[in-house]
Amino acid sequence: MKNCFKVLKKERQTKARLGKLKTFHGDILTPSFVPVGSQASVKSLTAQDLKEIGVQVFFANTYHLYLRPKAELVREAGGLHKFMNWSGPIMTDSGGFQVFSLGRLEDKVKIDYNGVTFYSHIDGSKHYFTPKKSIEIQNKLGADIMIAFDECAPYPVKHDYAKLAMERTHRWAKESLETAKKRNSQLLFGVIQGGIFKDLRISSTEFISSLPFDGLCIGGVAVGETKKEMVSVLDWVMPVLKNDKRPIHLLGVGEIDDIFKAIERGVDMMDCVIPTRLGRMGHVLSKETKDFKYDITKAKFASDFSLLDKDCNCFVCKNYSRAYLNHLFRTKELLAYRLASYHNLFFIESLFAKIREAIKKDKFKDLKKEWLD
Amino acid sequence: MKNCFKVLKKERQTKARLGKLKTFHGDILTPSFVPVGSQASVKSLTAQDLKEIGVQVFFANTYHLYLRPKAELVREAGGLHKFMNWSGPIMTDSGGFQVFSLGRLEDKVKIDYNGVTFYSHIDGSKHYFTPKKSIEIQNKLGADIMIAFDECAPYPVKHDYAKLAMERTHRWAKESLETAKKRNSQLLFGVIQGGIFKDLRISSTEFISSLPFDGLCIGGVAVGETKKEMVSVLDWVMPVLKNDKRPIHLLGVGEIDDIFKAIERGVDMMDCVIPTRLGRMGHVLSKETKDFKYDITKAKFASDFSLLDKDCNCFVCKNYSRAYLNHLFRTKELLAYRLASYHNLFFIESLFAKIREAIKKDKFKDLKKEWLD
Repeated sequence: MKNCFKVLKKERQTKARLGKLKTFHGDILTPSFVPVGSQASVKSLTAQDLKEIGVQVFFANTYHLYLRPKAELVREAGGLHKFMNWSGPIMTDSGGFQVFSLGRLEDKVKIDYNGVTFYSHIDGSKHYFTPKKSIEIQNKLGADIMIAFDECAPYPVKHDYAKLAMERTHRWAKESLETAKKRNSQLLFGVIQGGIFKDLRISSTEFISSLPFDGLCIGGVAVGETKKEMVSVLDWVMPVLKNDKRPIHLLGVGEIDDIFKAIERGVDMMDCVIPTRLGRMGHVLSKETKDFKYDITKAKFASDFSLLDKDCNCFVCKNYSRAYLNHLFRTKELLAYRLASYHNLFFIESLFAKIREAIKKDKFKDLKKEWLD
Repeated sequence: MKNCFKVLKKERQTKARLGKLKTFHGDILTPSFVPVGSQASVKSLTAQDLKEIGVQVFFANTYHLYLRPKAELVREAGGLHKFMNWSGPIMTDSGGFQVFSLGRLEDKVKIDYNGVTFYSHIDGSKHYFTPKKSIEIQNKLGADIMIAFDECAPYPVKHDYAKLAMERTHRWAKESLETAKKRNSQLLFGVIQGGIFKDLRISSTEFISSLPFDGLCIGGVAVGETKKEMVSVLDWVMPVLKNDKRPIHLLGVGEIDDIFKAIERGVDMMDCVIPTRLGRMGHVLSKETKDFKYDITKAKFASDFSLLDKDCNCFVCKNYSRAYLNHLFRTKELLAYRLASYHNLFFIESLFAKIREAIKKDKFKDLKKEWLD
């Protein structure tokens, strides 16, 4: 799709920007948070909940859906949108991240020039992914935004290996584009790799951004590196992209301080499991604590009849107390995971709405100060 | 509360009747199904879901809530209604059923003249329940309908023991009434016991119905006896109550054939975990199969894109397919349990609505034939 992204406004004091990404299933206002629904389900929530929460787009995992229920079945169902009754945009990854992260756990991944042999984490069955295959799967899934197959190197890793993985990623990027060249309604994003090495990151950014992708992802972060290293990567990558007119997606990042740091450097989108994963663990997001979360299962909340977060307007905060959530978690009631996930996701989506508002008013720095100082 | 129950209509061909039970938190149209929310949560569903489903009243367990989060804490929260944000009527049991059923598993229950010593299934701590204590707890919980403390004998049991348990139940019934005599907004139901022995059941029905309870429960069924024995119990008990003006609640029954058999004999209410428990197990209620349910986790449903039940109008059936539910169950997604529970409960509530409609039109027998033949 040509001109799918429009920068609506650049913030005066930072590199933060407001944008609109057109997709076949609707527009996405950026900066946008992209929650994860690995297996065609944002854990515990319905598509209706997502709408109510203000989710614009979510992120499904190609690796998981390829194994279960299988891409062909999703295609038969009429695509992911119909299968899970979500009418908004959907983004899928290339499968690469899971192939490597789950496969490497057992040292059972074999990478060759053309692709990757891996074994299912479910039944041990053998599979082979190539850039072509990844695109074909994402096509069957019917994603609005696809991602080119890449190799996400582990952390820590030596320069030699990071370079090799980057070169493979570049070759595969071209193959992905070739496979998807007739794409019509689907967008394709390329992935910048290069580990935590400045020269590689710059060279990868230059190469990937030279290709006709619809958007660019920064991959290979949130894999174990320090927060400082993640910021360094952004500081190498983002200046190279300063005149690029495409949306920039930071893969796998979603802690609150990181959100601010990425957006002030010009990142437009980011996906992360944090809100729902924390929710299932009983960690409730709130502006009232220093690290923006507290453990609702602690004894002191058993008789705390206040709201989860005093400034939150979500369905959960309007209707339930900390004491009730504490009780649900302690008694392992299924509703616990649902309510905490709902609140956490609403909390993050509200933060993104505030961020967009702040960019409009050239007040991003003030907002960042209010949250991080 | 005087005259809390009004029989609006008696069906012409059976003993089925339409009624209205007034409670402090609203009226209940009978016959009414009473889903179970043991620990102040109808598993996986919010109070809002329950309203949407058409639930009029639900059933909470005194034993569970006494142990967690404790009755005093619920009282501090402003009662169960406020604690879980449910504005409709709530019914609580006496705690007796769980004390005996969970306690007997380990042979650790000691019954004396005044009450029962038992040990928590959670931490082994020692507790003592008396009729007075049970009412005090239910009072703190703020139930609209309380139940008198009773001894639910196990199945199978000898006549001697069933008689002993019944006599205790009768003595405790009077004590429960005495403790609750100043009750204002709360109703108190007594429990008929007597195992599967005709003489005991008749004598228990006569005794319990002679006391000034607001309603009557038939207890000690759904404890392992055959369906035939359950019907026999109803056939002994119900004729004794034929001129009674109070609502009759059948404890723990909810299979579809049993629902029809109980209502045609004059039962007004029944509680059961079946819809939600089956839902969590992946058993979907449907009129399309002989036993009104099917196992959605079976392979043949993986590519079945039809609705869960073709005549159902619930939120789940309107939005999701069997294939999607199958996928959610196979991948153990939390949403699976929620969607199946929602549908099953809606299915049962819709059946009760149809039953009320049929009674109005003197067509209960036709409806029963349509479902059971």
